[in-house]
Amino acid sequence: MQIRVTTDDDWPRVYPFFRAIVAAGETYAYPDGLTSDEARLVWMREPPGRTVVAVDGDVVLGSATMGENRPGRGSHVATASFMVDPAHAGRGAGRTLGTDMIAWARAAGFRAVQFNAVVETNTAAVRLWRQLGFQIVGTVPGAFRSSAHGYVGLHVMHLDLTGDTAH
Amino acid sequence: MQIRVTTDDDWPRVYPFFRAIVAAGETYAYPDGLTSDEARLVWMREPPGRTVVAVDGDVVLGSATMGENRPGRGSHVATASFMVDPAHAGRGAGRTLGTDMIAWARAAGFRAVQFNAVVETNTAAVRLWRQLGFQIVGTVPGAFRSSAHGYVGLHVMHLDLTGDTAH
Repeated sequence: MQIRVTTDDDWPRVYPFFRAIVAAGETYAYPDGLTSDEARLVWMREPPGRTVVAVDGDVVLGSATMGENRPGRGSHVATASFMVDPAHAGRGAGRTLGTDMIAWARAAGFRAVQFNAVVETNTAAVRLWRQLGFQIVGTVPGAFRSSAHGYVGLHVMHLDLTGDTAH
Repeated sequence: MQIRVTTDDDWPRVYPFFRAIVAAGETYAYPDGLTSDEARLVWMREPPGRTVVAVDGDVVLGSATMGENRPGRGSHVATASFMVDPAHAGRGAGRTLGTDMIAWARAAGFRAVQFNAVVETNTAAVRLWRQLGFQIVGTVPGAFRSSAHGYVGLHVMHLDLTGDTAH
């Protein structure tokens, strides 16, 4: 498995699982029914942001998109989103993409990474982020309408990159 | 003091204090140096969002902008931002705007209001939101670079509108 920055040719291989994951209604609060062009604007970022794919040869296993969490006086904190093709779950693509994102954020000089909306019932993701060092800052109750579970909480998660243990 | 939905004529009276408040660097992580047109796109929302001004006759004391915090499966939670002209501080415009926003969110059927980034050193705002019923869900450490205080935390604040005390 390799991680590389996306090219325009990758999008047609990302959009099908992007669409399927959003439609499943368990992990992302994107608008419903985004067209391919609309979704591409959401997912495929230009520098200083970055979008990558995890590939095994010609097969795209998953993708991550990352950048500043806020502009201006919040631009020292990165954020990122991840999708792994359900057809390729269990091969470690999420962990590999997450590890790559953290290395990128550190190299780019960000002081922290913040996830704004990790669905609390997405326990595999929550477990992975905790294993990679993220802490749950808080949980917004009922902020996500899960297809299977109804109203569930959204975790705000945070990884400090400064080594400042006072945080 | 009255609260009313903005008209196009209001923006030239809002932008000067919008610009001053962002430039002061204590409360908002908007991009630096937004032009009037760029800032108007950020602040002045069309339905289903809403932007209001607090006015005393012809004088604009402050403004608030509000709408869905997230699309899709997060669209049942509202969010809002507030600015009071420093020249008219202490007259209760912030409280009046906040009370109006909560009434709007309730009438529009939102289940909650979430503030994503309340600067922890903005103690007047934090106190006001607590008085209006908001709770601090968590505080992202160092997520805001304050002009006066350096890196300070951003509170995620939440007001439940469902009456569900289990939350």
